[in-house]
Amino acid sequence: MQNDIGREMYDIAERIFPINRSLTGEGVRETLRILKEYLPELEVFEVPSGTPVFDWVVPREWECTDAYIEDMEGNRIIDYRKLNLHVVGYSLPMDEVLEWDRLKELIYTQPDQPEVTPYITSYYEERSGFCMPENLKQQLEEKGGRYHAVIKSRLFNGSLTYGECILPGESEKEIFISTYVCHPSMANNECSGPALAVRLAKWVKERKHKYTYRFVFLPETIGSITYLSGHYRELKKNTLAGFVVSCVGDDRAYSMVESRYGNTLTDRLLRNVLSCIDPGYRHYTYLDRGSDERQYNAPGIDLPVCTFSRSKYGKYPEYHTSADDMRLISSSGFAGSFRVMTRCMEILEKNENYLVRVLCEPMLSKRNLQSTISRKGTYEKVKRLRNFIAYADGTNDLLEIADRIHESAYDLLPIVKELREVGVLGVCEEGNGC
Amino acid sequence: MQNDIGREMYDIAERIFPINRSLTGEGVRETLRILKEYLPELEVFEVPSGTPVFDWVVPREWECTDAYIEDMEGNRIIDYRKLNLHVVGYSLPMDEVLEWDRLKELIYTQPDQPEVTPYITSYYEERSGFCMPENLKQQLEEKGGRYHAVIKSRLFNGSLTYGECILPGESEKEIFISTYVCHPSMANNECSGPALAVRLAKWVKERKHKYTYRFVFLPETIGSITYLSGHYRELKKNTLAGFVVSCVGDDRAYSMVESRYGNTLTDRLLRNVLSCIDPGYRHYTYLDRGSDERQYNAPGIDLPVCTFSRSKYGKYPEYHTSADDMRLISSSGFAGSFRVMTRCMEILEKNENYLVRVLCEPMLSKRNLQSTISRKGTYEKVKRLRNFIAYADGTNDLLEIADRIHESAYDLLPIVKELREVGVLGVCEEGNGC
Amino acid sequence: MQNDIGREMYDIAERIFPINRSLTGEGVRETLRILKEYLPELEVFEVPSGTPVFDWVVPREWECTDAYIEDMEGNRIIDYRKLNLHVVGYSLPMDEVLEWDRLKELIYTQPDQPEVTPYITSYYEERSGFCMPENLKQQLEEKGGRYHAVIKSRLFNGSLTYGECILPGESEKEIFISTYVCHPSMANNECSGPALAVRLAKWVKERKHKYTYRFVFLPETIGSITYLSGHYRELKKNTLAGFVVSCVGDDRAYSMVESRYGNTLTDRLLRNVLSCIDPGYRHYTYLDRGSDERQYNAPGIDLPVCTFSRSKYGKYPEYHTSADDMRLISSSGFAGSFRVMTRCMEILEKNENYLVRVLCEPMLSKRNLQSTISRKGTYEKVKRLRNFIAYADGTNDLLEIADRIHESAYDLLPIVKELREVGVLGVCEEGNGC
Repeated sequence: MQNDIGREMYDIAERIFPINRSLTGEGVRETLRILKEYLPELEVFEVPSGTPVFDWVVPREWECTDAYIEDMEGNRIIDYRKLNLHVVGYSLPMDEVLEWDRLKELIYTQPDQPEVTPYITSYYEERSGFCMPENLKQQLEEKGGRYHAVIKSRLFNGSLTYGECILPGESEKEIFISTYVCHPSMANNECSGPALAVRLAKWVKERKHKYTYRFVFLPETIGSITYLSGHYRELKKNTLAGFVVSCVGDDRAYSMVESRYGNTLTDRLLRNVLSCIDPGYRHYTYLDRGSDERQYNAPGIDLPVCTFSRSKYGKYPEYHTSADDMRLISSSGFAGSFRVMTRCMEILEKNENYLVRVLCEPMLSKRNLQSTISRKGTYEKVKRLRNFIAYADGTNDLLEIADRIHESAYDLLPIVKELREVGVLGVCEEGNGC
Repeated sequence: MQNDIGREMYDIAERIFPINRSLTGEGVRETLRILKEYLPELEVFEVPSGTPVFDWVVPREWECTDAYIEDMEGNRIIDYRKLNLHVVGYSLPMDEVLEWDRLKELIYTQPDQPEVTPYITSYYEERSGFCMPENLKQQLEEKGGRYHAVIKSRLFNGSLTYGECILPGESEKEIFISTYVCHPSMANNECSGPALAVRLAKWVKERKHKYTYRFVFLPETIGSITYLSGHYRELKKNTLAGFVVSCVGDDRAYSMVESRYGNTLTDRLLRNVLSCIDPGYRHYTYLDRGSDERQYNAPGIDLPVCTFSRSKYGKYPEYHTSADDMRLISSSGFAGSFRVMTRCMEILEKNENYLVRVLCEPMLSKRNLQSTISRKGTYEKVKRLRNFIAYADGTNDLLEIADRIHESAYDLLPIVKELREVGVLGVCEEGNGC
Repeated sequence: MQNDIGREMYDIAERIFPINRSLTGEGVRETLRILKEYLPELEVFEVPSGTPVFDWVVPREWECTDAYIEDMEGNRIIDYRKLNLHVVGYSLPMDEVLEWDRLKELIYTQPDQPEVTPYITSYYEERSGFCMPENLKQQLEEKGGRYHAVIKSRLFNGSLTYGECILPGESEKEIFISTYVCHPSMANNECSGPALAVRLAKWVKERKHKYTYRFVFLPETIGSITYLSGHYRELKKNTLAGFVVSCVGDDRAYSMVESRYGNTLTDRLLRNVLSCIDPGYRHYTYLDRGSDERQYNAPGIDLPVCTFSRSKYGKYPEYHTSADDMRLISSSGFAGSFRVMTRCMEILEKNENYLVRVLCEPMLSKRNLQSTISRKGTYEKVKRLRNFIAYADGTNDLLEIADRIHESAYDLLPIVKELREVGVLGVCEEGNGC
């Protein structure tokens, strides 16, 4: 079942992998069209180039239809149609025959990983450039000669595209999930996030949920800034917990990036869930941030947003190279991430300040919650139940209780349910004297 | 002197050891009668069976006059009159001849300690049962045959009995000491607590004391719940510090169990006293609780109560078995526990927020508190005095000062006395501008 | 340049080294006269003997013109004119011929450092005494005989002398620097402090400074108590940060002594500066205090004062002995201390609560603060800038931001300047809505 869901996400990622995405343009639109097949509630928005968004301006739209370097015999050395990482993102058009010594100034490699093509962009200064493996560059360096370098691209006033899906709950309070759709063909650091987000949204839809869920799919940085410029007041007002979901398809360690001060509900939630699933998970402070959590946590925005990843961006060797391909991610990798995120949501839905409704310990045996014979050792069996009750004093939410009694909050959910059913446990709410 | 006091407590424990105690009944009454010989202020109360106490109901009274298993030749295999642990507490009466295969279903042992008879109760479900060493059970298993099993017991509407001794001081504020009197013949985990509590009460009586002291002697769990149901409001209002005293007669490490959040005056007090007496003392959090501190710390009750023990219940091999006999406890074990508790009380009596009465350092030499010659090394001699003064700024009580300057609060008492006598030190009180 | 400044301080120390200083008297006055040559703003004050100052009284003035022990042939064994440590400070006059067995009762040595003459005083009990190396005492012990012991001293109603230099800034808020001038010929634990303080005052004068700077030069303990008795209200009102500067001329590890609770601005400042200059610096809590920080931090005085030293008083072998001579200190030692203190002041002058003026991350590339090409690895280059901005949310001062992002506050000063110049960063002030 988990594996089936993992497979579904892998298949979504595989479909969107080949698309030529960038900050703007048809690649983003096509990606969102595919995601909408899985999540019909997804709405797509366009924001015109030139729109001011806080300190920034929505950039021109970039289109690239072809690009290559060929030798004078017409043999293609690199070909954008085969690997879209070969062109520096937002490159200006060019069509020139150049000596190698001149051409090589336009070429970017990752010298410490000579086999891979790096992913490079130049969004905010106009230039043209190509990317290739360092090994290939070395061969050309030995050979020298002249080459024909072509980029068929254009920059024009168009728009920035993003998707949004809001699943209303009983409460206005929201759970916020953000992922990005602006990288070309990379599997973990691009396709895994949207695939997981779409599948999570489907999971939410299929269940009764108290909170409203907001999923956004946008280009990194400029997309989240654009989105915030239009929505930050409502997000500040309603967001209970938020997640940037990125690099969630591989099988390596789980990781999280804290919010700005590491003290929000989302921090407590991810910390409890991840440490219980994998005590060796990687915990990064906000100093290790790098994606849209930078915007969501910015001063004045102040949303309770953490990043959830498996191998975090910037921390795995294939990151931002052609080696981040479909072999790096797997059904089981996705299934693990799905488990983390659904546990988070299940806990959030029940994360109340609980209050035991009797003074002194409740009598458990009369409610069939405790063995009726008392002997050495059997005390341990009801310990967890009693520990939960001991801290259900109205000052702690479920996560705080779980942390205090060194338990998985998720594993306490059945206890909460049982105690509420027998009437021993209540919820603190405004107006009930808590 | 300390050893004499230790001997006194050992003797009290020895007198009450043989009594057939249970949650209710004559055993408790007889125990309290003996304790009252040492502490005439002890008052005894009876609460009728069936009285609702919070989530619980006072149980019926249990009486057991005889019980045994004998073979068909009339040889007694086990005999309640020789060891009262042989009957499961609150067993229903029986008088039956049974095949071994049927009888053995009623027999409880401690398989990992095959030589000892375990202590078992079944307060809240009606059954009959016997306890014996695993080794003996194995012998009977090999032998098989038929046996005559007799329990001469009855359950009837009677009452639950507890003792209370209040020693009024100048202040309404109280120091609370609770111990239990419901286990049959076990030495450390039963007799040591009442013996220490009685001797402590005598020590308090013999001294001028500012605070009121309240000692209670009650059956565990149902007794403290019953007591709280009648007294929790006054206890909440007046209790400054409270202690559950249990397992205090052996010679092993000291230990304490924290209050619910580990931050009360009692926690700070026991931590300072125990860490100074024995840096290797065992410090348990509230997650390791197990006795009446569960009730005193329950949400809504919220008393500042910790447990003080030597070998804590559940943490020593003889616990809840026939091996917890008079050889396990000693005069010196008692004397050590007495030292801890009297130190605690001496500190409590003087645990004020102190305030130095001069600006800048007081001149110590003019008060003969400091060597008048200044040379390398001699500074250390007045350091402790100066350290105390440095933090006597009206915001710290004695314990906080002691912790800040890494001292035993008890050892600071003479300094406090000396500084108060020379007029350098005052006490912060409401109305004196502190 | 730093070495030139180090040399200047060394020269000042060398000039004042030979003077016969004590708590009171001409030695202090002559020292202050010399310091005034370097710092004309230094004003000198006299407080008459007998003046009550808090719990103390200003002592009589002590004058010592000569002292020696000679054998009966007139050979001087020790001579105050050659080493002024040979007389116990505040010794009464004497002129007596004594048997060795009587004389030796008046002699003080440092037995564990037999080559050195210790520094001993007896301010508050009248006695006469001599100091010498333990080795010399042993020789005399073997020899025995009679000796002529002379101290030409007098105690009389005079005054206590101190110096004060206030350099007014735009703000009434003050930075306070205190050093002492009451030890005779010792280099690190006497002459280094005044030399550094004088040079720092000169450095402040030469620069535009927002805050007012107050430098005091006074006898230890009684001097700071005397000064506080007249000035503590204004100091409490205005002092932003304060330093006792002592033992700052040697080349060993830097050290600091915390304020009473270790939580003042000065603590945060010195901690950041010292840990960035030398991660192995010695950090002492207030329990290791020993100089005038005792008075400045006393309850009711409560100034935010820490001590800055290289080898702290009491923690280096030459301390309070004749071995603390000019060879123990150096130009480079002074230069290092000067660097620490000027860094502290530069940071203090800019230690505002900063607030970024845009929502979401500012666009750095349009302000030439960021490389315009994005590739793996280049992110690190702007990380520090972005980290600063991330916590410039109006709730943190510069030091708090530096600590949060694990940076040297001093090294952030250019970033602050740059961000303020491009208009991205503002300062929180009363009335601007922060």
